[in-house]
Amino acid sequence: MTFEISTELIEKIKLLVQEKNNAELLLHFEDLHFADIAEILDEISLEEATYIVKLLDSEKTSEALMELEEDVRERILNKLSAKEIAEELEEMDTDDAADIISELSEERAQQVISEMEDEEHAENIVELLRYDEDSAGGLMAKELVRVYEDWTVTGCVAEMRKQAENVTRVHSIYVVDAKEKLKGRLSLKDLLTAKRNAHISDIFIPQVDFVTVHTKGEEVARVMQKYDLEAIPVVDEMNRLVGRVTIDDIVDFIKEEAEKDYQMAAGISQDVEADDNVWQLTRARLPWLVLGLFGGLGSVYIMKGFDEALANFPILFFFTPLIAAMAGNVGVQSSAIIVQGLANDNIKGSLLNRLFKEVGLSLINGTALGLLVMLFGFVVGQEQMVSITVAVSMLSVIIVAALIGTFVPIILDKQGIDPAIATGPFITTSNDIFGIFLFFYLAKLILGF
Amino acid sequence: MTFEISTELIEKIKLLVQEKNNAELLLHFEDLHFADIAEILDEISLEEATYIVKLLDSEKTSEALMELEEDVRERILNKLSAKEIAEELEEMDTDDAADIISELSEERAQQVISEMEDEEHAENIVELLRYDEDSAGGLMAKELVRVYEDWTVTGCVAEMRKQAENVTRVHSIYVVDAKEKLKGRLSLKDLLTAKRNAHISDIFIPQVDFVTVHTKGEEVARVMQKYDLEAIPVVDEMNRLVGRVTIDDIVDFIKEEAEKDYQMAAGISQDVEADDNVWQLTRARLPWLVLGLFGGLGSVYIMKGFDEALANFPILFFFTPLIAAMAGNVGVQSSAIIVQGLANDNIKGSLLNRLFKEVGLSLINGTALGLLVMLFGFVVGQEQMVSITVAVSMLSVIIVAALIGTFVPIILDKQGIDPAIATGPFITTSNDIFGIFLFFYLAKLILGF
Repeated sequence: MTFEISTELIEKIKLLVQEKNNAELLLHFEDLHFADIAEILDEISLEEATYIVKLLDSEKTSEALMELEEDVRERILNKLSAKEIAEELEEMDTDDAADIISELSEERAQQVISEMEDEEHAENIVELLRYDEDSAGGLMAKELVRVYEDWTVTGCVAEMRKQAENVTRVHSIYVVDAKEKLKGRLSLKDLLTAKRNAHISDIFIPQVDFVTVHTKGEEVARVMQKYDLEAIPVVDEMNRLVGRVTIDDIVDFIKEEAEKDYQMAAGISQDVEADDNVWQLTRARLPWLVLGLFGGLGSVYIMKGFDEALANFPILFFFTPLIAAMAGNVGVQSSAIIVQGLANDNIKGSLLNRLFKEVGLSLINGTALGLLVMLFGFVVGQEQMVSITVAVSMLSVIIVAALIGTFVPIILDKQGIDPAIATGPFITTSNDIFGIFLFFYLAKLILGF
Repeated sequence: MTFEISTELIEKIKLLVQEKNNAELLLHFEDLHFADIAEILDEISLEEATYIVKLLDSEKTSEALMELEEDVRERILNKLSAKEIAEELEEMDTDDAADIISELSEERAQQVISEMEDEEHAENIVELLRYDEDSAGGLMAKELVRVYEDWTVTGCVAEMRKQAENVTRVHSIYVVDAKEKLKGRLSLKDLLTAKRNAHISDIFIPQVDFVTVHTKGEEVARVMQKYDLEAIPVVDEMNRLVGRVTIDDIVDFIKEEAEKDYQMAAGISQDVEADDNVWQLTRARLPWLVLGLFGGLGSVYIMKGFDEALANFPILFFFTPLIAAMAGNVGVQSSAIIVQGLANDNIKGSLLNRLFKEVGLSLINGTALGLLVMLFGFVVGQEQMVSITVAVSMLSVIIVAALIGTFVPIILDKQGIDPAIATGPFITTSNDIFGIFLFFYLAKLILGF
């Protein structure tokens, strides 16, 4: 069933645009899903894409525009008049329309809104623009099915049919009182089987999960996942029903969050993609490399402080990359586990317990690895004291790295800072420096140079 | 609205279990959401949890059991008889029930299935067990609303009401022909507004996205996200409608996938959590550390081959952690971007273009970092040839590391291997070795020792 755009189709469409063969073009796009239209728009030139957006019905293109990458959409919107953009927005759900408006310049946003014919729709969009985009208010749509508790079943069905016209998908029916305060929800099944003159107040379900407009997106995602919800009502400070967040917006949110954490762990700031240009990629990557560079130069400095070792135990310097790698790897492992635990909210127990656990874990890993180092030393006929020095320092480095990797994210989180920044280059670099210092310090103690 | 379990509540429940005060316990659990019941079960002892599962209605506990971590659930199920487990399964949707069955030993699974009273439910579960758990067949549930194209609207509504009893949430109504082949879908809105004696064949929508039982979970997730679907029908090899996958299962799937990639990048194999025991964590972490150890020992070996440098340019050895860190960081950045691009299916263009891009990017980053190294050398009064050597080798190392980080995942992906394994320790370790070799090799060329 999966639609695959072929080079032939793209070529065909490009040709038709060139010939301005509108009839044929409309025929080609007639049965296409908006997600596929978006894919086509992404493959053709800006002029061609703009031509098609202007040609097709707003009903079709509005959804396709939402699917496009932000920068592609921005370029196409730039080619449209305020009136044309307003027509697209009329067809969109309020949450999507608000997202588009917030991408425009203030002046142009004003123009577009004033060109909108549906006053109520425009007002709803303006209301959504007030909220932080990572809050429930910023994620929600105004479209929902709302019934009043004093309605009868018959009246309710008639009203609902009207409201459903504006709602793409009816997830839930929410029940409010005369002051618009959220009272509960109504199951479609109960509504269908209830007596026709029963009142909604007799049949609705008073338990309903909800969030407020200020609830953070992260928390909305957590609640919806925990309770397996497909939509959640959003209330304002007065407990009045003002909108709802649907699971599809949350899926995007969860994915973005996961990708951000992943990129942070890999030392990439900002949201970049493989197909971004060299300059965008450099801006995302270079700062972390500079951090790594300073770390490396710090190590140079530390080793200069131990240069007496060069005379007697030059072989120690062969082991610095090993020590640094171990410190880095252990640190990243520990921090990744903690960052994920914090994100999923499943870190339990006291800090002291966690300390014991990390030390215990490090002792096991460090001892196993230390024995391997001793074995290696034995096989290559290395001075035994050197092997012991490397093994012992590696064990210590592993313990310290695990503790840094564990507690730095926990402390950051307690301070309200995103603990994900403590993964990747940040933790590797600081662990490199600590590790190398500890290695030479212990070597000096043990070997006495 | 968010429910938070308090220590008091837990203590209270523990006490009530001890006193066997069933009436009071039932009262406490009456209004709780199953996700919250799961949280409580997770906080109390196994005996207490088993007591509560046996006490409460299967209708309530079956959903709570699904929310538990697999190992906690396994321990509780071990305490239940086959009959008791069968009762829980009767209440579950077929997809959840099949997941539970597949966690049991073969013998016990057989017993449980034979204890089930609802023959049809049992048969459906057995059918689902046939499929790979990462395929659409393994993800789907048998519960759905199906109507035949020759039905009238009136007959359809009556039938649907019957079917809806077994379906927790009606996402879509699927239309099939007499041979059960999927023909399309029906919108609830059209059904409500159609004439009562119209036939379904007159009003259904023939466009419907679907997947087959063998479609991979990853692909199901991609299609559902692309087309913003909340449920997708699943057909068998004969195009017969056999089930549907709902978005909540896909959300879990997307999250698991993202976490798995993240853990791989951090050098953690297997799915572990911060609260797993030391032994589980060691098994997940130690193998990657051993890989790192071999890499480090490989570097020792390489440096031994360049030990003439010790006599004339011992300072070079101070720079090995810097070179290794740069190689590692650049490699992880490149591979993370590619792995994410492959996962999101947005890597376009030829391999040659990608090669040019990575080299260009590395030249920019490497030159900037090289200049910083020169500056550092100048400030600390380092021999200029040494600074030049470090800067030039670092530039080369960055280019090589970026190429390895980019092309190893691409090659793995083409071979059908999960490219995510090429992130983290794997890429860092191999880049460390390549980097250090390249560094000393170039140093030997430039400085001539």
